Amino acid sequence: MRVITLLTDFGLQDTYVGAMKGVILSINPHAQVVDLTHNIPPQDIEAAAFLLNGAYRYFPAETIHVVVVDPGVGSERRGLAGRVGEYFFVAPDNGVLSWVLADASSCAMVELKNTAYFLPRISRTFHGRDVFAPVAAHLSRGVPLTSFGPPLTDPVRLDVPQPVIEENRILAQVIHVDRFGNLITNVMDETLARWRGCANVVIEIAGQRINEVSATYSAAPPHGLLALFGSSGHLEIAVREGNAAEQLGVGRGARVSIGRHGRS
Amino acid sequence: MRVITLLTDFGLQDTYVGAMKGVILSINPHAQVVDLTHNIPPQDIEAAAFLLNGAYRYFPAETIHVVVVDPGVGSERRGLAGRVGEYFFVAPDNGVLSWVLADASSCAMVELKNTAYFLPRISRTFHGRDVFAPVAAHLSRGVPLTSFGPPLTDPVRLDVPQPVIEENRILAQVIHVDRFGNLITNVMDETLARWRGCANVVIEIAGQRINEVSATYSAAPPHGLLALFGSSGHLEIAVREGNAAEQLGVGRGARVSIGRHGRS
Amino acid sequence: MRVITLLTDFGLQDTYVGAMKGVILSINPHAQVVDLTHNIPPQDIEAAAFLLNGAYRYFPAETIHVVVVDPGVGSERRGLAGRVGEYFFVAPDNGVLSWVLADASSCAMVELKNTAYFLPRISRTFHGRDVFAPVAAHLSRGVPLTSFGPPLTDPVRLDVPQPVIEENRILAQVIHVDRFGNLITNVMDETLARWRGCANVVIEIAGQRINEVSATYSAAPPHGLLALFGSSGHLEIAVREGNAAEQLGVGRGARVSIGRHGRS
Repeated sequence: MRVITLLTDFGLQDTYVGAMKGVILSINPHAQVVDLTHNIPPQDIEAAAFLLNGAYRYFPAETIHVVVVDPGVGSERRGLAGRVGEYFFVAPDNGVLSWVLADASSCAMVELKNTAYFLPRISRTFHGRDVFAPVAAHLSRGVPLTSFGPPLTDPVRLDVPQPVIEENRILAQVIHVDRFGNLITNVMDETLARWRGCANVVIEIAGQRINEVSATYSAAPPHGLLALFGSSGHLEIAVREGNAAEQLGVGRGARVSIGRHGRS
Repeated sequence: MRVITLLTDFGLQDTYVGAMKGVILSINPHAQVVDLTHNIPPQDIEAAAFLLNGAYRYFPAETIHVVVVDPGVGSERRGLAGRVGEYFFVAPDNGVLSWVLADASSCAMVELKNTAYFLPRISRTFHGRDVFAPVAAHLSRGVPLTSFGPPLTDPVRLDVPQPVIEENRILAQVIHVDRFGNLITNVMDETLARWRGCANVVIEIAGQRINEVSATYSAAPPHGLLALFGSSGHLEIAVREGNAAEQLGVGRGARVSIGRHGRS
Repeated sequence: MRVITLLTDFGLQDTYVGAMKGVILSINPHAQVVDLTHNIPPQDIEAAAFLLNGAYRYFPAETIHVVVVDPGVGSERRGLAGRVGEYFFVAPDNGVLSWVLADASSCAMVELKNTAYFLPRISRTFHGRDVFAPVAAHLSRGVPLTSFGPPLTDPVRLDVPQPVIEENRILAQVIHVDRFGNLITNVMDETLARWRGCANVVIEIAGQRINEVSATYSAAPPHGLLALFGSSGHLEIAVREGNAAEQLGVGRGARVSIGRHGRS
């Protein structure tokens, strides 16, 4: 029994995801297929890269994570399979693994070239079904990585947006808005801890000031704005029992400025 | 092989649900994880409580139902695990089990206190992943309830809205609107049968009158308004091949008045 | 281990799908249940029939496909179970299998009559849970088709829309709009190849002309309109990294005219 996860931009209104699962189960009836999400905005590689990073470590070692957000399908872009730390990944080589690779201590990748592990007929528009799903299924049966193609040592990497850390402030940005409207920034808990020392911080976003980092959502009054560290260690701007993105009228890319209080 | 179901307000656009499944499969690779729904409106404990009640009994005995609609996450609200009849439940103690408990003949609950069954690092914002998922997984491996913490005998219960039954009418309300726009009320089939005797009934909602309870949707003409008993035994207001909520312009909380016909 | 797929119009906001899975696992704990999609527009039998056809062949032989788009639930419409080629199907007899049957070389069907394989109490509104799910689960345990009821030899068939093929043009239509806004037509790759011979084609839709059939999405500039054969062999109108349905303002039923270039 081996876990294969799927993260795509296929949505849930068509049967694209179902077809991928059918292909996997046809090759390995014992695979355990788990959805990460299929609601990545169409072609949004950055969102896929970020969301993958928040979830992949919670799976059993040896889990195979398949990521299909693939605007270049059918073009010359490469497909890849690789091992990063304890996990396997199968994806187009377009940067969807950027966050994963930014943390990687060990990594081995191959380019998907061996058509023996693809479906017999390969469409030009749906490699999720015809290439990535069958490769993942064969991997889950123990086919070694090296069987799928030659080494790939220069995977595409997107710039993972980093905060600008200055003497007197941190210039950060919102990198994801979640289902609750929480604004997730690119500032990590350790980064802020190191920078702030013992000082209190003040956070500015969309013309609003937040004067502390709270421990929990319930630190604010209902519908009150707050900042806290979310479940992936990122600083989040939230509204208790409300939607910060809607209330502030901002989304991904919004600027966040963090300063220290005068007194500390 | 043991079934674990998940019912949350996490939506399907993030990877929160995926992370919970990863945690479960890391602890019990043989668990069978089934989604009840993840589209509970954010923080809507009442909706979660109602929808859980309509589904949990259809699962095999010993199924573990995990409910994470948790506006108080990180606060002092308790977490619980319990056995109610043939089923197990793991949830925040905020009333999400109110409908289940209203029917319970037998019940044993504990407060989740034993951190040995949580993830090593517990965030303040995502107990679904860090507390409830691992507890459910350990339960599914046979860890006895009493290992998770001390008895909890006073779970939070919400008022389950009851119809007001008068001599000449029943005052009811819409407690759920489903995907089809069906308006599901809090009047049960047995309740109405007892009250109406052999009389015909007339149902009023949003200024419209419905002069009988039909057996099936197809009893009305296409796009016609009707009342019938739905699959969970609740009186529903529906539009054949249409959407009653949209057509009548009403939703949860709408009043429904039921009277008897003059002649019967 | 046997795969059972589910394709419904129940959506994902209620627990209807969850209840069906509970019923299946109660009867066959070893069934592997896979979602095809639950977001068929309410009562849209045509859409269900089309989407089923694009996915069912990718599953292991003997997979049981359960389709519940069932506006006639509770009426006299029949329920059926059948074997078509290597696959089994369980559905209301309302035309949802029209595309599958159009391709069928071999086929054996029965009407669902034997209530011993239904749930003990059958609602008038939710045969997905009370009839189709338990029948599929019993089928997956090896109960022979003939046990479920008498032969059914005249299943309801919808007209599967066919293109009109004339000497100088093909009159086609959009039969599905997918998540990406791709406009999927009823012209198949073999049909067009046979008709065009060596000629170039010109495709007209919504007042726009497309002068060739591309091999991949990336053949067009970003946001450019193109035509190509999609993953199920249908001619599609797409916008690279965009949404053709929105850009052209058309949807299902839109007319598509295909001609030959003057020179070829």
